[in-house]
Amino acid sequence: MRILLIAIDGLGDRPVKRGKTPLQLAKTSNLDKLAKSGINGISYPVGIGLVPGSDTGHLSLLGYDPEQFYVGRGVLEALGSGVKLYEGDLAFRCNLATVDSKFNVTDRRAGRPDERTVAELAKAIANVSTKEFTFLFSHTKGHRGVLIVRSKFANPMVSDIDSHNTGPTAWAKPLDQSDDARKTADALNDWLKKVHQILKSHPINKDRAKKKLPEANFILTRGASMLVEGQPHKGAVYSGPYGKNVRIQKFSERYGMGAACVAGGALYKGVARYLGMEIIDVKGATANVDTDLNAKVSASISALKNNDFVFLHIKGTDVAGHDGDWQKKMKFIERIDKAIAPLLKLKDTIIVVTADHSTSCALKAHSADPVPIVIWAPEGMVRVDGVNKFDEISAPHGGLGRIKHKNVMPILLGILGKAPMYGT
Amino acid sequence: MRILLIAIDGLGDRPVKRGKTPLQLAKTSNLDKLAKSGINGISYPVGIGLVPGSDTGHLSLLGYDPEQFYVGRGVLEALGSGVKLYEGDLAFRCNLATVDSKFNVTDRRAGRPDERTVAELAKAIANVSTKEFTFLFSHTKGHRGVLIVRSKFANPMVSDIDSHNTGPTAWAKPLDQSDDARKTADALNDWLKKVHQILKSHPINKDRAKKKLPEANFILTRGASMLVEGQPHKGAVYSGPYGKNVRIQKFSERYGMGAACVAGGALYKGVARYLGMEIIDVKGATANVDTDLNAKVSASISALKNNDFVFLHIKGTDVAGHDGDWQKKMKFIERIDKAIAPLLKLKDTIIVVTADHSTSCALKAHSADPVPIVIWAPEGMVRVDGVNKFDEISAPHGGLGRIKHKNVMPILLGILGKAPMYGT
Repeated sequence: MRILLIAIDGLGDRPVKRGKTPLQLAKTSNLDKLAKSGINGISYPVGIGLVPGSDTGHLSLLGYDPEQFYVGRGVLEALGSGVKLYEGDLAFRCNLATVDSKFNVTDRRAGRPDERTVAELAKAIANVSTKEFTFLFSHTKGHRGVLIVRSKFANPMVSDIDSHNTGPTAWAKPLDQSDDARKTADALNDWLKKVHQILKSHPINKDRAKKKLPEANFILTRGASMLVEGQPHKGAVYSGPYGKNVRIQKFSERYGMGAACVAGGALYKGVARYLGMEIIDVKGATANVDTDLNAKVSASISALKNNDFVFLHIKGTDVAGHDGDWQKKMKFIERIDKAIAPLLKLKDTIIVVTADHSTSCALKAHSADPVPIVIWAPEGMVRVDGVNKFDEISAPHGGLGRIKHKNVMPILLGILGKAPMYGT
Repeated sequence: MRILLIAIDGLGDRPVKRGKTPLQLAKTSNLDKLAKSGINGISYPVGIGLVPGSDTGHLSLLGYDPEQFYVGRGVLEALGSGVKLYEGDLAFRCNLATVDSKFNVTDRRAGRPDERTVAELAKAIANVSTKEFTFLFSHTKGHRGVLIVRSKFANPMVSDIDSHNTGPTAWAKPLDQSDDARKTADALNDWLKKVHQILKSHPINKDRAKKKLPEANFILTRGASMLVEGQPHKGAVYSGPYGKNVRIQKFSERYGMGAACVAGGALYKGVARYLGMEIIDVKGATANVDTDLNAKVSASISALKNNDFVFLHIKGTDVAGHDGDWQKKMKFIERIDKAIAPLLKLKDTIIVVTADHSTSCALKAHSADPVPIVIWAPEGMVRVDGVNKFDEISAPHGGLGRIKHKNVMPILLGILGKAPMYGT
């Protein structure tokens, strides 16, 4: 018996038309088939009244309660983008951004320059050191990058440069009283000023200025976190503002199931690598609505031959939600529904479909609304509950009722007959 | 976007006729309209199997978990009745009662004397001091009063005189080992004996004795609690047997919303003032079934013009429940339903209707049964769930499912898109 967990990113929503959500409006005969012969419920990714991040939502869903296992986004982003992490490496998620002459952030994404532009600029700042600290910058996708800081003084207790708003730069501050945190914050601020000098005098930016495009002349960092000990794919120890010396037990050890991840986006690969899963790269997986869903489904089916557990991540729904485009979201859901058809023929496989969080088209942001979940299993393994549709309104009437994402893996172990016994 | 939170006190009940609750039996077309186009649920005010007090039920509902923010009823009663509290003041809720010559309580409410009688007796004991302690007694409403104790030795760790039963007086005992608690308990007992002497020799009581009415010759105190530091309307620090040095963050600061309260009863105004809300006094608001509901609804509509959040409290349902009169309760619910009609035309307003607890007509007391809740919001803000009636039986089928009152404010912030994000 194998498990395929499909996380449709940002799937949940609010009514957008005729009182219905994009998922309700979409024609989803395959998802509805799963609902009809599965057990359904509604799930809070991280808790009632809390807006999940993509990182915390996925950690919960994979059975790693973020309260215990989340340390910060930097290491997840680094692991997902393929940047190699060594013991003691401090990692940040970065945006290439625009500041004015007084370091006021005027564009958090520098007008979204094309891949080649960002790659070229990233090269210019790839390796800039300050006294006692080495800074390694890598471009990932679009305006995004990863910064690795190496130093015997490197400490993850430093604040985010990225305030998620335009306005004055939020220079790094130490988050505890340690000398190392202060030194790290100071070094990071020094690096940012050096990098600004390099970027603003770069020919690309001279050219962008001429063309009245926002200059890509600054880096916004966030999610400081550190690989403290061990090798990521073997289970390691991490630290960050959200958790100190957190030892990650490998997914395969935690659940006794070999696991692989099929995803386009770096963060999701990063979460999977954080948990020691195998990462399966799929050609045409773009982490957007233009992704090759058939290729991802095929890759998942293949992966199920060699793994007990496959985590399939689909990103486009979240992108459409952030864009506030419910029609795009609805159509992409319909494409997903078609693409999963081959999965319904799988034998000896439990299929779980849910989301890491809701992304509201109206809010153009993640929302605290819970998400539907269906667990479909070979006959006799789950209590089929009479829910006929896979959507936010039907799901709460199902047999799972109202759960949290951190309950999902224990419920799955229960269905497999592998849950721990309490008492005798 | 504004929020109107309507707390219908003691609204929840058990079946009283033909298997239906007073709320089910009542004709409530407006409440049902809210249910039909809102999201519904059933809520435990303080927890499963716990009977909420009016104080703890409301604190929860307003997002202040009583486990963290409740110190005792005395300060709430004082703040609500308009008695001025200064730093170091110890406050008690009081009943004017009847004891026999051996201090056996024979009537906890002294036969419910009229307002004028209680006011007159209160004057006679308004300012009676014992060694090192000053005792200030104020009449509030009916047989009720507030006692303020001032002394450098005053300490809130003293037991209730009111045992909620007839029988021997439960003289005050210290609740910890401190000298001050012992001194306070002793002083309170001395005061009670002095007050008994004054009251029993008062002409009013001579007259009541002649008329075979219970003499109003004793005071039952409860809910010892103290304003430790600060000014109530600015957020202050309180202590009592339920919590030591509890700092109350103002509602407006906690939620970023200016807030006002429309209520007739002292306790509810007290809770609102405890949280730093503006109190709007409404002529004709009696905290009983004869209250002017239209005036309260109008006042709430006006208040919504200057406040982001309005808490409208309606008391009569609880009174009818305590009387064990389900018909009175049902009829009052029908009056509420009519009175709220203008609210359904409000724009840019989220309306929440629920209760602070159930008051069972059969038990004539608060019960641990959860209460229905509906959140009605402009189109697209909540997932409309197909519930058609606002009552105890329909509500659990709604999209909110089964929640706790302390979840309500976080859920509302989520609907507004203002909930905190956990992760990125």
